[in-house]
Amino acid sequence: MTQLSDQAGEVAIQRGNTLASVEAMAAAHNNWGRWGPDDVLGTLNFIDEAKRVEAAQLVRSGQTFSLSQPFNTDGPQKGWRRRTNPVHTMTDTGTDAEFGDQGFPHGIGGADDFIAMPLQCSTQWDGLGHIFDRGNAWNGRRAGQVVTSDGDQVTGIQTAAARIVTRGVLLDVGRALGPELGSDEGELPDGFAITAKHIEATIKKQGASSDIRRGDVVVLRTGQYARTLRQGWGDYAGGSAPGLSFSTAPWLHMSEIAGIATDTWGFEVRPNEFDVAFQPLHQIAIPNLGLYLGEMWNPEELAASCATDGQYDFLLTAAPLPITGAVGSPVNPIAVK
Amino acid sequence: MTQLSDQAGEVAIQRGNTLASVEAMAAAHNNWGRWGPDDVLGTLNFIDEAKRVEAAQLVRSGQTFSLSQPFNTDGPQKGWRRRTNPVHTMTDTGTDAEFGDQGFPHGIGGADDFIAMPLQCSTQWDGLGHIFDRGNAWNGRRAGQVVTSDGDQVTGIQTAAARIVTRGVLLDVGRALGPELGSDEGELPDGFAITAKHIEATIKKQGASSDIRRGDVVVLRTGQYARTLRQGWGDYAGGSAPGLSFSTAPWLHMSEIAGIATDTWGFEVRPNEFDVAFQPLHQIAIPNLGLYLGEMWNPEELAASCATDGQYDFLLTAAPLPITGAVGSPVNPIAVK
Amino acid sequence: MTQLSDQAGEVAIQRGNTLASVEAMAAAHNNWGRWGPDDVLGTLNFIDEAKRVEAAQLVRSGQTFSLSQPFNTDGPQKGWRRRTNPVHTMTDTGTDAEFGDQGFPHGIGGADDFIAMPLQCSTQWDGLGHIFDRGNAWNGRRAGQVVTSDGDQVTGIQTAAARIVTRGVLLDVGRALGPELGSDEGELPDGFAITAKHIEATIKKQGASSDIRRGDVVVLRTGQYARTLRQGWGDYAGGSAPGLSFSTAPWLHMSEIAGIATDTWGFEVRPNEFDVAFQPLHQIAIPNLGLYLGEMWNPEELAASCATDGQYDFLLTAAPLPITGAVGSPVNPIAVK
Amino acid sequence: MTQLSDQAGEVAIQRGNTLASVEAMAAAHNNWGRWGPDDVLGTLNFIDEAKRVEAAQLVRSGQTFSLSQPFNTDGPQKGWRRRTNPVHTMTDTGTDAEFGDQGFPHGIGGADDFIAMPLQCSTQWDGLGHIFDRGNAWNGRRAGQVVTSDGDQVTGIQTAAARIVTRGVLLDVGRALGPELGSDEGELPDGFAITAKHIEATIKKQGASSDIRRGDVVVLRTGQYARTLRQGWGDYAGGSAPGLSFSTAPWLHMSEIAGIATDTWGFEVRPNEFDVAFQPLHQIAIPNLGLYLGEMWNPEELAASCATDGQYDFLLTAAPLPITGAVGSPVNPIAVK
Repeated sequence: MTQLSDQAGEVAIQRGNTLASVEAMAAAHNNWGRWGPDDVLGTLNFIDEAKRVEAAQLVRSGQTFSLSQPFNTDGPQKGWRRRTNPVHTMTDTGTDAEFGDQGFPHGIGGADDFIAMPLQCSTQWDGLGHIFDRGNAWNGRRAGQVVTSDGDQVTGIQTAAARIVTRGVLLDVGRALGPELGSDEGELPDGFAITAKHIEATIKKQGASSDIRRGDVVVLRTGQYARTLRQGWGDYAGGSAPGLSFSTAPWLHMSEIAGIATDTWGFEVRPNEFDVAFQPLHQIAIPNLGLYLGEMWNPEELAASCATDGQYDFLLTAAPLPITGAVGSPVNPIAVK
Repeated sequence: MTQLSDQAGEVAIQRGNTLASVEAMAAAHNNWGRWGPDDVLGTLNFIDEAKRVEAAQLVRSGQTFSLSQPFNTDGPQKGWRRRTNPVHTMTDTGTDAEFGDQGFPHGIGGADDFIAMPLQCSTQWDGLGHIFDRGNAWNGRRAGQVVTSDGDQVTGIQTAAARIVTRGVLLDVGRALGPELGSDEGELPDGFAITAKHIEATIKKQGASSDIRRGDVVVLRTGQYARTLRQGWGDYAGGSAPGLSFSTAPWLHMSEIAGIATDTWGFEVRPNEFDVAFQPLHQIAIPNLGLYLGEMWNPEELAASCATDGQYDFLLTAAPLPITGAVGSPVNPIAVK
Repeated sequence: MTQLSDQAGEVAIQRGNTLASVEAMAAAHNNWGRWGPDDVLGTLNFIDEAKRVEAAQLVRSGQTFSLSQPFNTDGPQKGWRRRTNPVHTMTDTGTDAEFGDQGFPHGIGGADDFIAMPLQCSTQWDGLGHIFDRGNAWNGRRAGQVVTSDGDQVTGIQTAAARIVTRGVLLDVGRALGPELGSDEGELPDGFAITAKHIEATIKKQGASSDIRRGDVVVLRTGQYARTLRQGWGDYAGGSAPGLSFSTAPWLHMSEIAGIATDTWGFEVRPNEFDVAFQPLHQIAIPNLGLYLGEMWNPEELAASCATDGQYDFLLTAAPLPITGAVGSPVNPIAVK
Repeated sequence: MTQLSDQAGEVAIQRGNTLASVEAMAAAHNNWGRWGPDDVLGTLNFIDEAKRVEAAQLVRSGQTFSLSQPFNTDGPQKGWRRRTNPVHTMTDTGTDAEFGDQGFPHGIGGADDFIAMPLQCSTQWDGLGHIFDRGNAWNGRRAGQVVTSDGDQVTGIQTAAARIVTRGVLLDVGRALGPELGSDEGELPDGFAITAKHIEATIKKQGASSDIRRGDVVVLRTGQYARTLRQGWGDYAGGSAPGLSFSTAPWLHMSEIAGIATDTWGFEVRPNEFDVAFQPLHQIAIPNLGLYLGEMWNPEELAASCATDGQYDFLLTAAPLPITGAVGSPVNPIAVK
């Protein structure tokens, strides 16, 4: 593993002083004001119309891939901070239509349904109002001025409704580094911290279609979701997981990506790389960089395809539901190759 | 209006006998077995990979349009059959993060949220399990074998998760026929039944980019949603509305479109064109044709663009949330030109 | 109507200066500290064990009355501040059990259900965390220290779980004053402000069983709910209504009642008795007096019984669901005579 | 343990043939038609007005006890058949009221809340539409005619709204038999089947106030809930538990009780006493006897009181929320001594 270490990155991590590490990183890596004082889009600003034309030109075969996990009651959530799995219920059914009396004329019958769920229970985008740094939200606004119990008054997820169509790039770190780490399955072990060096090694191994450019959305596969498909959810929701090292904050900043998503619950490596911490990379990425983070994505079919044809970039449409004032949204991201 | 009448279509409508009209239409226009006995996709089968390559090539400027209405408590629903507006609530807020004690370390704060809503409360796809014809679901299955209180066991909306990327075509019937009907606003009046002749007239008026081909998704604008933006919701949910005539069933069948969406609550003209009826065109379209119907879409920005540049076709991605067993799904459809 | 006026009370109402009126009333009528600095029960402290023994002795015939309105989707709510009607859905049904396959052995079948609702959508108790006066909650605590997005950390409704068993007294102001106001139906007109004089007149008219004593819960019937049963909900939720005058605050304080409930949406007369105001009597009653308020109760059957037998007091059990941290609770209050 | 065996009861249990056992028991113990063909109340008919007068006379000290567990997200549910724990969310908070801008005038602030929960997630009554026996609901109706996806059309829980005020009797089987079974904690071990002999032994040990009479509601304490308070929920929801033996069906029938509740998830002993079975005693009790079953009640404080003063009967009010068409209801049962 020595060859995978990242001396520069590790400097950023003072294990015993999370706050100092966060303060230093936020001071060095921050996009406040970059798109003016009224900005609500953060790194989505990196996606312009030319970028979308570039992305559409990546479509060659017409194959599509849903990058969404299933939304149902058998999901991984255990109720932490009221994050349950979705509860989907029927208000009319085919059984009733066939045998019962639904009150409709001329033989028409219907089924209808309802859902109750946390917006971040399964495949999701974190909105820019999801995380705060010392009371500050994205672009330096005070958190209490942004998200009240009536929702996000400024950066609600509906602001991104028409934005996220761009070039997507799969970085299959699981397949790239797994063998070196002893995994025949193309998976990183839980607790493995992915550094900028690991990212660069993956890009190099995957080849030219993996070059990361301004405005891309990176889909980073650790392989943990694949593992749960074999072994059951276990502690997928909040437990130990591979994920990005706190030290990747400079890379997230300098790469000028529009967003990044992982196949894990929490994007960052868990346990976090500090003695006492809770998701410190979120604290940099969302309020300081204005970076859109995706979690619990499902890259499995796409990754299998990319491993076969060697094309790692694609047209990505990942449109959140425009729920007014939401700080996150379920999403069914679609990759087209 | 005489020149807009549709003698052939009107033959199909026996005003005093809805059931007979439905029976005759279903006998004449039915796709059961067309894609084999196990099919769960219906007209989505018309979208193949070549179709998606064709669609991607329509992207020229990189402009994007969300075709979704807002999801919030101020929507049009009034509780009919338990269709309420979405209730979005916060489980953590910025106010708490700034002033309160959320229990997180090192200055990180968070906001999180929850939603309870009918799946067809706002911009949506009807799934193939949504409507039955005399106890039969799509492809001739018995309704009670398809949709139980545990959801759609066969044609649940998750089956369409990766499918709906195709060429979209806006048919702005409101702008095309509105002036003739006395509307300066480019809107059809409530109760106006759109026939195949009206559709053809619209296509002709819009020009070549509006030709309808196998596998397209048609976005049909009546202008009713625009009217609610000016006048308030009124009876948008279930009241009188412009919409497709029952007589368009043959056109829906023969055009081999993959789906069709309107800017109205119920797709069909309301009141329906029979003495006693409830959504009889649904009864043909969903269980007999296997046709995907979209409702409550928002074509306004797209329509303004098309009226300006004269290009009515575009790349459409309209990915439902893969809610296991759902008979419909909220969707944020994205058009890229 | 002159004979029903209340000069003393009207002094308290400066129509053009709600805040000054509230400040003066709160200064004069306030129970902070009365039960110590840690108190979470407010006027429920007036109910002691002897009071319950007294109440139980009122049971003579064994007749019971539910004072709850129905909980269902046909309720009066219109979505104001996300107050919808309850959405009750089935997760298993008899139709499925009879015809379908629920996956259970030996012929057992089941039905099960789910609800999504605002806690104050129908018959309810307001908890002490429901209303604040200039940032202060009950007993002088700061509002932000009491109710966060995680719920009421101090005075959550679960604190009242075992408390509300006491003597109830029906004050049927509708029947007592209705005739004088021109109503043959025993109902007060919308917008009618009930003053202390009206309350006293009602007590006098009803007789000895209506004497109000320390620890009682008053059930005050205006007749508005009866009117909705005849005429439909109309603007029951938030519209014009009979209800208590702001000037009754001294009576609510000095009577030492444990709680008071009405058959209206909002307890107070609406429109409120000021040029610009929103529920100013709540602002005195809950945070300053610590008084439990009930809303949307259904006194109809009980009132008919009391009008017949002349016994207006009864054993009342009105137990909230002990939802941890809730600021209100649905309740099915039970009167036993 | 020999002395606690119950030869008669065990005859009823053919371990290898659950269906035959259920058929025989249902044939021998059935109340269909007992209260006429239109009955919707079942054993609640045993509670008459005289019974309630008798119950009220049990009030001596005025002490009250809530028999409800807390309703919150930290409950025992794990999502089986969509039974989650309650999700309680705030739509307005004190933090917002104190610091934010809620849009209210004159310094009034508010907090409000919402809940999404299965109706049987915590302390509950099973309604008569909750369980079916070979497609039959209570009183011999076909299940599909009673409970559709629109709810229980006949025996919905609202029918019991004003009914359940009666004499309650605590049978503390845990304390009565625990010592004999080696428990110093007054708890029965998981998997322990309580037979009629055990019930009779408990009554004998507790003394005269425990005599069971027509119309009583029995609150049966196994001690399992107390164990979870010490040890955590573990598999409380659906796992191994003490509970009533299938062989108690004759006792449940002949005792003419109005209802019976336990401190366990499932009322019956689990695992059930057959090779393959799911809750077979429910299959007798609800559809055949029309018996109201309570589950997940919390008898702890009441039991401690009864153990001290030796008075095991009390006035019980256990009013379900009148949710139209519900097959169960959360309840906060109140005992008054």
